[in-house]
Amino acid sequence: MSRLLSEDQLEAELRDIGARRYHRLHPFHHLLHGGLCTKGQVQAWALNRYYYQAMIPIKDANLLARCYDSELRRNWRTRLVDHDGEVADAGAGAASHEGGVERWLRLTDGVGLDRDYVVSERGLLPATRFAVDAYVHFVREKTLLEAVASCLTELFSPEIISERLDGMLRNYDFVSADTLAYFVKRPPQATRDADYALAYVKKNAKTPEAQSAVLRALEFKCDVLWAMLDALHHAYVDPKHVPPGSFVPND
Amino acid sequence: MSRLLSEDQLEAELRDIGARRYHRLHPFHHLLHGGLCTKGQVQAWALNRYYYQAMIPIKDANLLARCYDSELRRNWRTRLVDHDGEVADAGAGAASHEGGVERWLRLTDGVGLDRDYVVSERGLLPATRFAVDAYVHFVREKTLLEAVASCLTELFSPEIISERLDGMLRNYDFVSADTLAYFVKRPPQATRDADYALAYVKKNAKTPEAQSAVLRALEFKCDVLWAMLDALHHAYVDPKHVPPGSFVPND
Repeated sequence: MSRLLSEDQLEAELRDIGARRYHRLHPFHHLLHGGLCTKGQVQAWALNRYYYQAMIPIKDANLLARCYDSELRRNWRTRLVDHDGEVADAGAGAASHEGGVERWLRLTDGVGLDRDYVVSERGLLPATRFAVDAYVHFVREKTLLEAVASCLTELFSPEIISERLDGMLRNYDFVSADTLAYFVKRPPQATRDADYALAYVKKNAKTPEAQSAVLRALEFKCDVLWAMLDALHHAYVDPKHVPPGSFVPND
Repeated sequence: MSRLLSEDQLEAELRDIGARRYHRLHPFHHLLHGGLCTKGQVQAWALNRYYYQAMIPIKDANLLARCYDSELRRNWRTRLVDHDGEVADAGAGAASHEGGVERWLRLTDGVGLDRDYVVSERGLLPATRFAVDAYVHFVREKTLLEAVASCLTELFSPEIISERLDGMLRNYDFVSADTLAYFVKRPPQATRDADYALAYVKKNAKTPEAQSAVLRALEFKCDVLWAMLDALHHAYVDPKHVPPGSFVPND
């Protein structure tokens, strides 16, 4: 890329990457939302996605740790609050004080996984760990602008989350509304965060090289999410090759 | 693990991990050696494995960079020589001065891949990059003992390499002996390096915790190699889901 894009053009290119490469297009998502997964496949998805949820605050703390802009830090720290909450387990009726990681554990509870097993990470697919850790390392090692841009998949997440909420409630009798509390809380947070990050990127990517780096950062993040679903699909759907040591469903 | 193993017991446990989890057991290897891969699948394997080869000297340099033991450094630096060679391209007849990375590029040349495309890494599966980078990060971030132990898959590589050499020469008319120069040179280097690393690990893992860490390091490395083949299998064999942007074979 050799030409400087306008802010609107940059946003259009970012949205085009989402339209082509976001994991909403992955076959595993169609299975999951369409009610075509077995309970074991839903468990495997929830178990592996837990690792992503658990590492998001680490990712955000790494961004904070290298950010010398106090306005950006003030904004970004709300992500830690969203994910870690105010208390570990607020109990029924006080769920607004819980964080996203805790709410994800309600989901893994709800689909019948032992919480100690989930948190131990023993059953994870290695490919899940490699992909998620790649995201953490990216945020730690690339420029701050690229680190911010890598979260822009959140531009596309509210829609996929609402599909997931509807599809999973309708299609799986082992999934309840309480189990899916994560997905109720998350879209407004994601929208707020994505709007902020998009404005930051548009304002700060002011050379063709910086704009190109921003676009590559979003592609990278799409690759992370896609690789996570590829690994699930390979291990649990087709051809069902579970790697040595990873979670084996009962069904 | 709570019990201190003897050196022989530790070696036996390491070899047991190889017997259960080394990628020689992966279905893709049986296809590759058995002549059941298409040319495009062999190309995809060679292209993705190139990234592993290219990052091995980076991995070794990271180990050297944190090693305060000059005897270990003296030994380990031979790995840089093996992989990077004395010259970039020694030409025919002088191949002994070339390094392993260059010899791998003779393989990707030989199976019909454009060298600029291979070296650009544009066609890589993201999952390959994530797995290989996880290895580099492991060597950078874990204890030196674990970093050394993670190379112990080399204990098991001479056998797989000889299977590969025989199987590929016999089964693929697009593969010549010259193309496979890498595999002729590599087994004695791997045996020498693995013997050294095994002796180092046996001598230096002197608590149950350290021995456990060594065993987990070898499992981790087996997971890296396994995940690389899982990604190839998923993208190019079954169910042939090539992720967005990765190499698409002609066949």
